[in-house]
Amino acid sequence: MSKTKVGIINVTGYAGVELARLLYQHPEVELTSVTGRSAAGQGLGEAFPHLASIDLIIEAELGEVDLAFSAMPHQASAKEVIPLLNHGIKVVDISADFRLKDATEYLHWYGFTHPAPQLLKQAVYGLTELYRSQVASAQLVANPGCYPTGAILALAPVVKAGLIEPDIIIDSKSGVSGAGRSLSQQTHFSEANEDATAYALDGHRHLPEIIQELKLLRPQQPLSITFVPHLIPMTRGILTTGYAPLASGKVSVDKKGREELFQLYLDFYKDEPFVRVVEFPPHTKHTWGNNLCLIHPTIDTRTGRLIVISSIDNLVKGAAGQAIQNMNLMLGIPEVTGLQALAIYP
Amino acid sequence: MSKTKVGIINVTGYAGVELARLLYQHPEVELTSVTGRSAAGQGLGEAFPHLASIDLIIEAELGEVDLAFSAMPHQASAKEVIPLLNHGIKVVDISADFRLKDATEYLHWYGFTHPAPQLLKQAVYGLTELYRSQVASAQLVANPGCYPTGAILALAPVVKAGLIEPDIIIDSKSGVSGAGRSLSQQTHFSEANEDATAYALDGHRHLPEIIQELKLLRPQQPLSITFVPHLIPMTRGILTTGYAPLASGKVSVDKKGREELFQLYLDFYKDEPFVRVVEFPPHTKHTWGNNLCLIHPTIDTRTGRLIVISSIDNLVKGAAGQAIQNMNLMLGIPEVTGLQALAIYP
Amino acid sequence: MSKTKVGIINVTGYAGVELARLLYQHPEVELTSVTGRSAAGQGLGEAFPHLASIDLIIEAELGEVDLAFSAMPHQASAKEVIPLLNHGIKVVDISADFRLKDATEYLHWYGFTHPAPQLLKQAVYGLTELYRSQVASAQLVANPGCYPTGAILALAPVVKAGLIEPDIIIDSKSGVSGAGRSLSQQTHFSEANEDATAYALDGHRHLPEIIQELKLLRPQQPLSITFVPHLIPMTRGILTTGYAPLASGKVSVDKKGREELFQLYLDFYKDEPFVRVVEFPPHTKHTWGNNLCLIHPTIDTRTGRLIVISSIDNLVKGAAGQAIQNMNLMLGIPEVTGLQALAIYP
Amino acid sequence: MSKTKVGIINVTGYAGVELARLLYQHPEVELTSVTGRSAAGQGLGEAFPHLASIDLIIEAELGEVDLAFSAMPHQASAKEVIPLLNHGIKVVDISADFRLKDATEYLHWYGFTHPAPQLLKQAVYGLTELYRSQVASAQLVANPGCYPTGAILALAPVVKAGLIEPDIIIDSKSGVSGAGRSLSQQTHFSEANEDATAYALDGHRHLPEIIQELKLLRPQQPLSITFVPHLIPMTRGILTTGYAPLASGKVSVDKKGREELFQLYLDFYKDEPFVRVVEFPPHTKHTWGNNLCLIHPTIDTRTGRLIVISSIDNLVKGAAGQAIQNMNLMLGIPEVTGLQALAIYP
Repeated sequence: MSKTKVGIINVTGYAGVELARLLYQHPEVELTSVTGRSAAGQGLGEAFPHLASIDLIIEAELGEVDLAFSAMPHQASAKEVIPLLNHGIKVVDISADFRLKDATEYLHWYGFTHPAPQLLKQAVYGLTELYRSQVASAQLVANPGCYPTGAILALAPVVKAGLIEPDIIIDSKSGVSGAGRSLSQQTHFSEANEDATAYALDGHRHLPEIIQELKLLRPQQPLSITFVPHLIPMTRGILTTGYAPLASGKVSVDKKGREELFQLYLDFYKDEPFVRVVEFPPHTKHTWGNNLCLIHPTIDTRTGRLIVISSIDNLVKGAAGQAIQNMNLMLGIPEVTGLQALAIYP
Repeated sequence: MSKTKVGIINVTGYAGVELARLLYQHPEVELTSVTGRSAAGQGLGEAFPHLASIDLIIEAELGEVDLAFSAMPHQASAKEVIPLLNHGIKVVDISADFRLKDATEYLHWYGFTHPAPQLLKQAVYGLTELYRSQVASAQLVANPGCYPTGAILALAPVVKAGLIEPDIIIDSKSGVSGAGRSLSQQTHFSEANEDATAYALDGHRHLPEIIQELKLLRPQQPLSITFVPHLIPMTRGILTTGYAPLASGKVSVDKKGREELFQLYLDFYKDEPFVRVVEFPPHTKHTWGNNLCLIHPTIDTRTGRLIVISSIDNLVKGAAGQAIQNMNLMLGIPEVTGLQALAIYP
Repeated sequence: MSKTKVGIINVTGYAGVELARLLYQHPEVELTSVTGRSAAGQGLGEAFPHLASIDLIIEAELGEVDLAFSAMPHQASAKEVIPLLNHGIKVVDISADFRLKDATEYLHWYGFTHPAPQLLKQAVYGLTELYRSQVASAQLVANPGCYPTGAILALAPVVKAGLIEPDIIIDSKSGVSGAGRSLSQQTHFSEANEDATAYALDGHRHLPEIIQELKLLRPQQPLSITFVPHLIPMTRGILTTGYAPLASGKVSVDKKGREELFQLYLDFYKDEPFVRVVEFPPHTKHTWGNNLCLIHPTIDTRTGRLIVISSIDNLVKGAAGQAIQNMNLMLGIPEVTGLQALAIYP
Repeated sequence: MSKTKVGIINVTGYAGVELARLLYQHPEVELTSVTGRSAAGQGLGEAFPHLASIDLIIEAELGEVDLAFSAMPHQASAKEVIPLLNHGIKVVDISADFRLKDATEYLHWYGFTHPAPQLLKQAVYGLTELYRSQVASAQLVANPGCYPTGAILALAPVVKAGLIEPDIIIDSKSGVSGAGRSLSQQTHFSEANEDATAYALDGHRHLPEIIQELKLLRPQQPLSITFVPHLIPMTRGILTTGYAPLASGKVSVDKKGREELFQLYLDFYKDEPFVRVVEFPPHTKHTWGNNLCLIHPTIDTRTGRLIVISSIDNLVKGAAGQAIQNMNLMLGIPEVTGLQALAIYP
């Protein structure tokens, strides 16, 4: 029996090469076509020596596939994806182009008029833990951003349960690969090494995505979310620390309340293969290279606040791994297929 | 004229060696005695090759000095310091032993009964920016902790001005040298490299210090502070991000409010040689090796929250540099003497 | 059909946990027992969160297995391994205890009298590329050291072919995980980060191993080898640069000679699944987390010297991966089984 | 008395900003003009926040100065420097444009025809330890390259004394700042972090400089030098390991020989303020941010080879610090002025 053929549009960014790496080990699909304008014509292993075992030429245009991943930048991705959808091809779009439901947000946050607002309704937000059944029947899945993945998974249980007041602070620390493979002074080794900084204080593009999804979990509750991303000197990993006041009377502000909170998270994620609720503050290193999201919820008993910390590998659960998790569902393959590698440690 | 003689008790930790480094370049004092039990008898340059230009033997007991820095661990420091005070020697204590005004806090946070509660009143909290005149006339200065230095300087202007509601979140990211020179699995290179994690979620020992000092700035206002420290893979630097709701009606939640806020900080720190209010989110690298604290205050106009970010070198402004700043004042030397080196970049 | 049962003695070091990680993904064997004195009684995932998917308790004594890996330190390993051999169990010993053929070397280099010199003859040096058939029929395989793996594979083709003069310089640069999980000042994050240094200038313990194996490749040629290991600030990876004068008249000192040399390497390793001869200086990052050894040979045409560079992941091809490669052969499983993951990049 | 005015041409590279940092602390000269085409018109502190204490605007053209540093790239530097020389201004050129005595080397190694071959004779190679008196009277000093500084200082004593055979291997490991501030894939954080690689195997541009200077130390001896630079994941520092066979009969191959060798180095550098001969393999961290070169010579008694290791900060002794050392001599200021800061550790 022949395997399902899949392709990667723009394999040359970090999400693209990570997709190639993970798909190489996937037993049920075959990567048959990869594109990348700048490197077109080169062998994949020529451009990326760690992929030398994959015998593919980087093409200018995608070959015939059953499902395509788009790892294009926003705005450009929609242009590539729309024709594929018209040809009945399934698509997991790693860009932001189909994540937001409200087309006007694209003008505000991304500076372009969305070319296909009607698709925004059809597209499924590919956070499997929240939209498993919709993903399974979708033609177009919008793969979540890296920050939103860690932030939404950390906060979803308490937002849905109405356990917190609406005042949420999300403080995220990201490895530098989150800024992509394009060169910039900010990501030049000598500048980023031994440095930490905050950025996008005026509002990061992942904020509307976080707001949209948390609001959908409890539409009746207004939310006031401040999100500050930070760049720290490591390659992979996002550590997200979320803070919010506990809603009065919902959970006791003591050791017992901590246990109830912990149980709430355990219950919420009890069937999730890629979320692990842990009893200690997680290390990003514990998810290095794999598709897990580790979550540690606790209560600051001095102040009655929720503190919740999540850890992911931004290129796996935050991008390529989650994309494959979505693909598995869309193709009717067991969700964990090809994604069971353990984190590499140390 | 002979220079003032100073000594370092326990030179062998990171605060100790950093003091030695900085004092070597100080034109007005002379480092004449350093102690360190484990390395006693060794030349300073033998134990620490970067200090080879300093011709001193590490001693078991401190020689005769006019002023001593204690870089002992907490509890042990008080024992060393008390006899010196009785002999009329001035002391800058880098440990926590004289930072808290309430002796009972020591039992709670540090697990020991304070041996000299009467000294807690006499000791001056050595955050020069807040206690300049008291430091100048003090015999005993308690040098602030590294996290409190960055956190208090970041929040002091708005707390004092009553500009924020009492709900404060302090999220700090520290380089690994903050954990000291003692070995631990947590600070083993292969574990700490490419890793980020939160710790001390049950309450870090620097929290009571932050609470004490912020409360003193506006005693009439109750404060509810959550402080979460994080370890990130770099050697030096603390980046602190503070969040708090703006008090209603005190400052407008818009661009104009941002400017007023910025001006408030400029005014508050206008004569401070080691605090710089900056128009962009500071990088820890911009303070690498020097005594500056960079602060960037802004408003999240979507939510009406203050976001304020500070950056220091934890071993300089967060320890040894600040200790010398205190020493300068105590000895009547211009405050900036010996501390004017620029940050090393990149 | 039940899988072959394997166990790990001393799972708590870096080679041990890496074995556990790799064996988890191995389709033909089952990890059924792990030991570790200090952590005995703990769940494997409790001690090492990244291994939480493996449901095993760390034991004090090894359970019943068909094949055991020993990741004990030298001297202690032999003691554990000898009884197992007497019970007919197959063993891959990751320590140095059975690598050297001459028992007197152990006293000289490791400071102990070898407890079972007769086993040194029986043990097979587990560099599969040189001893494939012997490994396949061995009961005891001595897994090569990390430095020797990179150095021997880099130099074997030219030594065997008699292409170089006997004056060999081996300059290796290792990530810090090579120093193991035990704590030391040298591997403390704040000391090892942003630092490079050479060590063991008086002779590193891996030197006799390198000499033994290179000499065996061409017994008639005397060899004079200088080996200097360096520690550089990364977690994984060894880059080895080898230098030697080309033997006069064997290969031309020009572009054509370079091509012949390259072809010699291609031929030597043509059937090797885990050695790749590459046309550019390899990056350690190109082998991060996988079992490859990349080798780039070239000629310094100004001086007529061979320069050859190899790259491995010290914990995979330099330890746990190579051990599994050996195990596969010993159990009659295809050599590449469980080892085909691509390097993680970036 | 007014201070000597100095300027920096092209302040915007790493050598340029490091010059500015060091000159700020120099008590005898005043930095009065800095240029930089891309950033012209910006305040120095605007472009480089760590330099905010220096009140200068980056200009398009250099103002009136007594001495200029050129931190331009090669070829462009000569063009800037020649007119200054014609106006009688003293120049320290940090580029390679006046380092090589043989003009034809520029075409071969740098790909351009040298515009002023007559100046090559006049220019003094600014390795103070070898050319102190010539530097003192020079109008034009060619500041050595970073690799040559570490390599020549490591080997000069034995080459001059005729203690080694001509077969020299130089294996250098450099921090990434050596590649400059210009962006490249090679120096992108996510690619350079956790990576080591060799480069320029066909011949690095610093090789002719090393050959020229070592040959001048003992013109009668032919030399055959192989130099391989490596990039390792740290910002600053070059560790150089040199290897050469000891000349037969000159020094005994034993412990006594090691002591004689050590004494030879001590004697050679006995009056040098910035060279320290050390009894242990030096760490790059021991020179972080300062102008020292640490050298450790030893003998591999198994093979009769010299091993010598040097450590410098590539941006200080390897660039800006050495340039100031040269400037001090050229201006008749004590050589160590402004360069006495200790290394920053950890």
